[in-house]
Amino acid sequence: MNHTPTLVETEVLSLERPFRFESGDILPRIDIAYETYGRLNEQGDNAVLVEHALSGDAHAAFYHEGDRKPGWWDCMIGPGKAFDTDRYFVICSNVIGGCRGTSGPASIDPATGRPYGLTFPPLSVRDMVEVQRILLRHLGVDRLKCIAGGSMGGMQALQFFCDYPFQFESFICIASSMKHSAQQIAFNEVGRRAIMADPRWNNGNYYDGVPPEGGLSVARMIGHITYLSEKMMQEKFGRLKKDKESRAIFRPSFEVEHYLDYQGVSFVKRFDANSYLYITNAIDNFDLKTSLSSRDRFRGEGRQRGAHLDDMRGKRGLVISFSSDWLYPPSQSKEIVQLFSAFNVRVSYTEIATEHGHDAFLTDYARPSEIIQGFLSSLA
Amino acid sequence: MNHTPTLVETEVLSLERPFRFESGDILPRIDIAYETYGRLNEQGDNAVLVEHALSGDAHAAFYHEGDRKPGWWDCMIGPGKAFDTDRYFVICSNVIGGCRGTSGPASIDPATGRPYGLTFPPLSVRDMVEVQRILLRHLGVDRLKCIAGGSMGGMQALQFFCDYPFQFESFICIASSMKHSAQQIAFNEVGRRAIMADPRWNNGNYYDGVPPEGGLSVARMIGHITYLSEKMMQEKFGRLKKDKESRAIFRPSFEVEHYLDYQGVSFVKRFDANSYLYITNAIDNFDLKTSLSSRDRFRGEGRQRGAHLDDMRGKRGLVISFSSDWLYPPSQSKEIVQLFSAFNVRVSYTEIATEHGHDAFLTDYARPSEIIQGFLSSLA
Repeated sequence: MNHTPTLVETEVLSLERPFRFESGDILPRIDIAYETYGRLNEQGDNAVLVEHALSGDAHAAFYHEGDRKPGWWDCMIGPGKAFDTDRYFVICSNVIGGCRGTSGPASIDPATGRPYGLTFPPLSVRDMVEVQRILLRHLGVDRLKCIAGGSMGGMQALQFFCDYPFQFESFICIASSMKHSAQQIAFNEVGRRAIMADPRWNNGNYYDGVPPEGGLSVARMIGHITYLSEKMMQEKFGRLKKDKESRAIFRPSFEVEHYLDYQGVSFVKRFDANSYLYITNAIDNFDLKTSLSSRDRFRGEGRQRGAHLDDMRGKRGLVISFSSDWLYPPSQSKEIVQLFSAFNVRVSYTEIATEHGHDAFLTDYARPSEIIQGFLSSLA
Repeated sequence: MNHTPTLVETEVLSLERPFRFESGDILPRIDIAYETYGRLNEQGDNAVLVEHALSGDAHAAFYHEGDRKPGWWDCMIGPGKAFDTDRYFVICSNVIGGCRGTSGPASIDPATGRPYGLTFPPLSVRDMVEVQRILLRHLGVDRLKCIAGGSMGGMQALQFFCDYPFQFESFICIASSMKHSAQQIAFNEVGRRAIMADPRWNNGNYYDGVPPEGGLSVARMIGHITYLSEKMMQEKFGRLKKDKESRAIFRPSFEVEHYLDYQGVSFVKRFDANSYLYITNAIDNFDLKTSLSSRDRFRGEGRQRGAHLDDMRGKRGLVISFSSDWLYPPSQSKEIVQLFSAFNVRVSYTEIATEHGHDAFLTDYARPSEIIQGFLSSLA
């Protein structure tokens, strides 16, 4: 039996009015790239907002015309899957500051006709959330069954849920953190320094020439080491060599070197180095608790953010961690459970035994799928 | 009471005859930089050879004229210390391939009058050992009480002890490994790629211009993340910020970023990028077991290496690991203990509880000092 792959397209909402960042900076207009899967039901109560991680985009599921690989969370989104598109209306958008359709440093500044580069405003996780709020309004969705994400996607889910709890029935936060530790900041910082040490970076002005591919690929390689568990890496690569007798000096020879090389090279084809700087900076500065206590300092689009923490009472949360994830270790997930329990959210927590490390949220989906299906079905 | 610091100088042995590398390549001459502390006794049986780690050098203890900081293992070497210079004649030399006095890629090739750069031969841990053997002969030392080192120094100690067991009474191996795991190779590979991605690296030909400081400092920053435990880093830096209100974008703001920045900047002043490539490549390719089984394939300087594995019988070994060392985890030290026990070496093993991570071999010296003192005193 042949299956014709379900085709989807990324759509773009162009907001032709100013968007104000948490920093106070304003852009005169922004684009928001997004995809939706399934249908909003008549009652308007079956929407699920899915949040992508550092290198993700709006294309979470199904296929783009001509592509051989589906969206980044296709294992989780689709008919009968964890986020069942026969039941739920699933929405995913590219984050502000990104480079996959939503406005970011590579976008054209209407004032100059040239890419923003480093004149793009400093970015926060709250900015990501506010942009998605605009999208939801555009889609006519004002109440969601769930907001869900892994890694940086989990941070957005937590921030959005806390700032506007009345919009959500529940959140799902996978392999994430309320705030980065010194080591998490350190790994990101080295990635940033690798980009900025590349002379082609040129203070962010490289859009007319060759981008800082060397630096960006090093940053990505660092990331990939932290995404896999030590054991998984050992089982996958060990000390195997591709090219045993080569005397070519300092070219990749171990399998693990080829793997990292491939990851670095393929990443630079699809990602903008400045976006990498902005987004990693946003997540390093993300601090959920502090942002909650400073909620009065800022008014978002429309209703005041965070003014209704009490609205969390009785809502539901699901927190999932992976035993071998040393980048976002289970201890950080447990902190999330504690915080939300204190807000009287009914939080379920599961630590899944796996050797996939942090990557498990993308690759080891069988158990999480079951748990998420059960969780969503149990909602009102 | 004022103490005048004990002054030492690095000496250089110039070997004006060819040195043959394990690869088969030959250099027409080499320099060997070394220091000694204490005196060789009349019986000639109190020598201890100390091996440095990746970024170390021959200056292991005491002070150089005008310096405010002593040698890299001064906490361990000196009167009354672990390696008691009132009792032992302690020797330390810079490894071949290095950049601190012993010949390496930055040294002048007599054939061209220019630095070797990448024409320097591929390097192995065995090459490091063979060069030290030449030094020992020069110093008139043919039997040693002990060979000791941490991290890469431990690898040299193991290799030297296995290749020429009749020369040693014992070895001490701290926070080290018989062979790198995929993750250890991966971290080194990313450091190498950071250097090679820096256009100033210029295929190793940068000695006339500006060296690839950006790339080398990124490599060093990656290293420093792996040298500290996650907990130590958190306690030391947490999420503290130096410059709270700065809007300067992507400049270090977190304390941990400043720390890494400082480590990177200070390293490039004293280290050669090509040496970093050669040395990390040597330790990634180090595989003690395999090298032992291939011992017949190669004859070293003088007596055939490894021809007398039986000579290990009844010798002594001390293996030390640190509980929070995730770069060279205790499991790798236990593998060393198993291997040498199989060779009938009487091996003692201690895992020291500490939060200092891999750096503990340089910084958390109280317990190791006691253990090493006891171990050395217990030798014949």
